[in-house]
Amino acid sequence: MNLLRDLCLKEGLEGSTVCFMDIDEERLNVVYALAKRYAKEMKRPDLKFEKTMERKEALVDADFVINTALVGGHTNVEKERECGEKHGYYRGICFGSYFHQLKLMLSVARDMEAICPDAWLIQASNPVFDGCTLMTRETKIKIIGLCHGHYGVYRIAEVLGLDPKKITFQAPGLNHCIWMTDFRYEGKDAYPLIDEWIEKKAEDYWRTWDGNPMDVQMSPAAVSLYKMFGLFPIGDTARFGGAWWHNVDLETKKRWFNKYGGFDSEIGWDYYLKGLQKQMDKMFQMYEDSSASVVSEFPPKMSGEQHIPIIDAIINDHEGKFQINVPNHGALPGFDDDVVVEVPGIVSGHGVKPIHVEPLPKHLTLHIIRTHIVRMEMGLEAFLTGDKNVLLNMILSDHRTRSYDQAQKVMEAVLALPFNEDLRKHFK
Amino acid sequence: MNLLRDLCLKEGLEGSTVCFMDIDEERLNVVYALAKRYAKEMKRPDLKFEKTMERKEALVDADFVINTALVGGHTNVEKERECGEKHGYYRGICFGSYFHQLKLMLSVARDMEAICPDAWLIQASNPVFDGCTLMTRETKIKIIGLCHGHYGVYRIAEVLGLDPKKITFQAPGLNHCIWMTDFRYEGKDAYPLIDEWIEKKAEDYWRTWDGNPMDVQMSPAAVSLYKMFGLFPIGDTARFGGAWWHNVDLETKKRWFNKYGGFDSEIGWDYYLKGLQKQMDKMFQMYEDSSASVVSEFPPKMSGEQHIPIIDAIINDHEGKFQINVPNHGALPGFDDDVVVEVPGIVSGHGVKPIHVEPLPKHLTLHIIRTHIVRMEMGLEAFLTGDKNVLLNMILSDHRTRSYDQAQKVMEAVLALPFNEDLRKHFK
Repeated sequence: MNLLRDLCLKEGLEGSTVCFMDIDEERLNVVYALAKRYAKEMKRPDLKFEKTMERKEALVDADFVINTALVGGHTNVEKERECGEKHGYYRGICFGSYFHQLKLMLSVARDMEAICPDAWLIQASNPVFDGCTLMTRETKIKIIGLCHGHYGVYRIAEVLGLDPKKITFQAPGLNHCIWMTDFRYEGKDAYPLIDEWIEKKAEDYWRTWDGNPMDVQMSPAAVSLYKMFGLFPIGDTARFGGAWWHNVDLETKKRWFNKYGGFDSEIGWDYYLKGLQKQMDKMFQMYEDSSASVVSEFPPKMSGEQHIPIIDAIINDHEGKFQINVPNHGALPGFDDDVVVEVPGIVSGHGVKPIHVEPLPKHLTLHIIRTHIVRMEMGLEAFLTGDKNVLLNMILSDHRTRSYDQAQKVMEAVLALPFNEDLRKHFK
Repeated sequence: MNLLRDLCLKEGLEGSTVCFMDIDEERLNVVYALAKRYAKEMKRPDLKFEKTMERKEALVDADFVINTALVGGHTNVEKERECGEKHGYYRGICFGSYFHQLKLMLSVARDMEAICPDAWLIQASNPVFDGCTLMTRETKIKIIGLCHGHYGVYRIAEVLGLDPKKITFQAPGLNHCIWMTDFRYEGKDAYPLIDEWIEKKAEDYWRTWDGNPMDVQMSPAAVSLYKMFGLFPIGDTARFGGAWWHNVDLETKKRWFNKYGGFDSEIGWDYYLKGLQKQMDKMFQMYEDSSASVVSEFPPKMSGEQHIPIIDAIINDHEGKFQINVPNHGALPGFDDDVVVEVPGIVSGHGVKPIHVEPLPKHLTLHIIRTHIVRMEMGLEAFLTGDKNVLLNMILSDHRTRSYDQAQKVMEAVLALPFNEDLRKHFK
């Protein structure tokens, strides 16, 4: 719905055709119907909507393809998680979902090569880092990976009491692992304001904090990473940035994130899933009640998502700066060209041009970034070869693994889940 | 004594002067006296011996410098180990000794730059990988790192019942992490003989094995790594090659190495240290008994060590192939030029030329080799910057570390050991 309202608001995309594709017919019908009602209420008869359950049909004549799919949905992820927990992995070890996502992404990109080879693929679902690296290596499709993480800087501004409109920033790295290399308020270096906040206000903030579990941008974990590496971690970075020691168990998570243990604890994740469910329920209700105004539920203001503005920038040569995930090609110095990095980039009719940024600090590069890259490379190697030894080594590399036998057992158990049948056959 | 008998046996090194240097006067006197007696018994009046406790004095006019020093000796290492054990690290976490070694190595190389800039440094004591990488990056000295590990191939031949004189091999990688990319018996691929042995004889061999704790070349650990990565690990590789899961505790070590838990278990290491002590005692006894024949204790046959043959190859242009540790410069494809690799190399009057070998398998590279390199890079970064955060992250990266607090405590405890005073000052 966010993309839809952006589309209705963005000048220059008149006459667009949007084709929804889903393998879930009910959900597809709901989204399709609501989209049509939204456009009608917004008086945009020029926008055309289609729907299909056949992916290849949806790709015909596409200029842009937005992939937001999660194979098997959260239900399967949670079953995998439960299985991992039984084998001693707190919060699970969901490699099945990971490979299913890679497989879907690659098959979408391959279909695009056959059907709409000049279209842009905007990859929104995870793993953006691994998936975009895989697709850009294995196909010729033009790909941009997008994420919300960098908006974390506005949460920093908010907590510091700064007008978000007056800040500028740069936060390059890898997706879910981005680090603020520049932060300005009214043009002046604002890092000293963070330092001051940490010194004088952080303890109070943490003691009296009363937000939602997902709010971890200014958590003790983030501040500790900042002290350790010299750059502030942005968005999901404090969650996934490589600090296994923040994620040992619920008590540890409460200490480092917030009283709920942060986004990824059993409490935080449950909150997140319930939020998704509520939103889905609301859409189904609206679908049933054909007299309800969709626009009043989703008021027409730009969502802040980058998808539609990027499409507009490319189609109409409306040059803009975005936070994008694209193959490195030297933008982030010190890493291979064919690794997808998250950097600022200029998007226009000329295409997508990542901005060359300064190298990240050596300590951060060694300890965090290279580790992420090695993990991704092992994931892709396992996926592409189907070598069970590589998969086993991925699990052995997990800091939570305590023994060889534990790794073997959890590998077999996750592979034995009914929805992982194709992976059971793939890994030999 | 090995180097001494090689020197006495090797034609072409007549008239050499050997200067022994040690900060331990008693040990220095013993070695010096025994060397003189050995040369006398061997009727080699042309060989001259000197001794000094001043390193810089020893370096004057040197053509070759052999560094075999272990700072603080095994006594300090064992104290560090004990300290680590108290904080939950089985077999300790001896980073103090590691940094002391780096510091000594670098200061030797820097002294050489000032006093004998054209001399070759043969680095025999550990960490050869980290130390040689450090010295070759920070100084202009010509350096060769040597190790015994590759002789493991002859143990393979022995166990398979092959004449060691009829085998050839190639085993590149990093020091303590080398993998057999070629293995021939009478010119023919001998890997099938290993496979046959594993299939038909390994179980029997392991059940009836009755060697010394250090004999791990054909252990279940080595065979498991071979099955996992497709190349047989050679020498110390099965001990240090990156498989934390073989080293969890004594029981696990017994399963993977041998009934003593291998070289590095409390049993194996004690055996090793007692062996060193016995050898030292014997030398002291011989020193006291001036009528004893040193030659009959160390019979004059080539030791198999590479040091003296390499010196001969350089001095007399006696070209030969050796297993050396030198900066990569493309010899092992896929790694930085300034990382020291262990590869076969041709040594002659022309110098030391590493042989370009084929790339190691991707899975091995990702899981094992890159992990070793990142660990080394973090070690050097910690050493060169004195950044306590980097040191802390090194400890956090250790698979045995269970929590942030544990890492901090063991770091402070090891730094608090009396002989680590300089490190306490260095790390801030």
